Amino acid sequence: MIIEVIKLKSFIDKLTTKIKETNSRICVGLDPHLHLIPEYILNKAKKEWADSEKAVAIAVLNFNKKIIDEIWKHTAIVKPQIAFYEKMGLEGLKTLNKTMEYAKEKGLLVLLDAKRNDIGSTARAYAEAYLNNKNIDAITINPYFGFDGIKPFLNYKDKGAFALVRTSNKSAVDVQDIESKSGKKMYEHVGKLVKNWGKDYLGKCGYSNLGAVIGATYPKELKKLRSMLPGVFLLIPGYGAQGGGAEDVVYGFDENRSGAVVNSSRGIIFAYNNDKKYNESDFAFAAGKAAKNMKEEINNALNNYYS
Amino acid sequence: MIIEVIKLKSFIDKLTTKIKETNSRICVGLDPHLHLIPEYILNKAKKEWADSEKAVAIAVLNFNKKIIDEIWKHTAIVKPQIAFYEKMGLEGLKTLNKTMEYAKEKGLLVLLDAKRNDIGSTARAYAEAYLNNKNIDAITINPYFGFDGIKPFLNYKDKGAFALVRTSNKSAVDVQDIESKSGKKMYEHVGKLVKNWGKDYLGKCGYSNLGAVIGATYPKELKKLRSMLPGVFLLIPGYGAQGGGAEDVVYGFDENRSGAVVNSSRGIIFAYNNDKKYNESDFAFAAGKAAKNMKEEINNALNNYYS
Repeated sequence: MIIEVIKLKSFIDKLTTKIKETNSRICVGLDPHLHLIPEYILNKAKKEWADSEKAVAIAVLNFNKKIIDEIWKHTAIVKPQIAFYEKMGLEGLKTLNKTMEYAKEKGLLVLLDAKRNDIGSTARAYAEAYLNNKNIDAITINPYFGFDGIKPFLNYKDKGAFALVRTSNKSAVDVQDIESKSGKKMYEHVGKLVKNWGKDYLGKCGYSNLGAVIGATYPKELKKLRSMLPGVFLLIPGYGAQGGGAEDVVYGFDENRSGAVVNSSRGIIFAYNNDKKYNESDFAFAAGKAAKNMKEEINNALNNYYS
Repeated sequence: MIIEVIKLKSFIDKLTTKIKETNSRICVGLDPHLHLIPEYILNKAKKEWADSEKAVAIAVLNFNKKIIDEIWKHTAIVKPQIAFYEKMGLEGLKTLNKTMEYAKEKGLLVLLDAKRNDIGSTARAYAEAYLNNKNIDAITINPYFGFDGIKPFLNYKDKGAFALVRTSNKSAVDVQDIESKSGKKMYEHVGKLVKNWGKDYLGKCGYSNLGAVIGATYPKELKKLRSMLPGVFLLIPGYGAQGGGAEDVVYGFDENRSGAVVNSSRGIIFAYNNDKKYNESDFAFAAGKAAKNMKEEINNALNNYYS
């Protein structure tokens, strides 16, 4: 048992290794907004399944699998957002698990975007609910409760967690920009806490199993936080549909072009909507192309930044 | 349709009315820690159901129903903590829904403790997932994203939300006690934001459909926040097992003895463990007694405080 634990590769080492193998610093968000899914997929499932809740969930599963078939070569990790699956009821949660299983079969890492958070005894229940699932490698969490609400998510060497520091939305400033006595913003304090909380959970790569979420939509903050938080691996959402670009996210990486992954959800999985040359039936192809483009955009931007 | 919306009673008016009817200011937390559930209930379900996941979930449902049968007269509202049901998988979520349905049949209000939070478009998916459910009257949420992550939960006149302000756990101070430039603590700023965010969602009772969570374990902060936040209804967790007492929570109420409910979970539903005179089979009776006692303790403490 002890030998097995020692043998386990830490989550963050698995992630950094996979990023090197794929030479891709992107994360593909699997957020099935139902109104954006090609209608023919929904209609086909509705014909096959009388139960409409099941039909919708099966349609989403078919959609996700076809997306994964096209993007798996261009990404190290995928990030399903659980809200969209919870919204579909129990059938939706079955689709979530089957989607994650399929991603694992393709060799991808899976980050469940769930922003779970609570007092210690409840946080432990969440950690058991998700990090005991073989199809999940990491989970996003909210830091508001402080360390006793974080610690249960760190008790799995081969699993990781990403705590919110600076979110990508406009209202992020409401709470996160409150200025402290020392002149620092709230998000800087939270960033430092995340660094300290994670320092006993470092992988061989020098990064911790406890990472931080910092939005691409705030490049100045991203730059500041990257230098403040060595050892903290960053998940950078907000690329594409939310407005972040390749020139914004280079600040999230270290000099070895490591230390971060950049997430895009709608910009990849619904890329077929953004270009008139695509038909509905091109959705998976368009997603694969968008993932490849994003991968290359970021790699090129990093090459320019470090040249 | 417009007439229907006007006719809808707001969540907070339903809650304050129910509190008056029951003369009870408590909330009973339905947090099924499996190791605390009487073994005979688990064993009985395991004999009936070969599928062990289903057996455990059925046992929890039976446990919850018997608890509700004994406590419904003594409380206005129950608060299932979703983590414990998510941990039990899909069968656990079925039990959650059936538990909430049963509570509604008994005339109780149901607050789902889920601490959901995300950017606007995702928060909307969560709101649709939970507030469209007829068995759910309100949900707990986390304020870290700011207002665009809160607003989707306020778009239902007959449903409510409670945002975290001061949590009941020890590590609450890590983030929530960071001192701002103005000398105020983080939780005070968040409290004020919650007040402002909720001011367009007031019921006839003068309180808002957006309430705040403030732990019983921090009575000084509770007192300060109560006077800072008129119009904000408080959910006060941390009574009993976590250490808060009746003399601590009186500060959460207004001069009309309204404006708050106090939650206890383990202290009520597992009360049979706290007194040697009880056998396992007395668990529901013990819970009913504990709920009645807590109701009376708080009412007496309020009588003393205002005498």
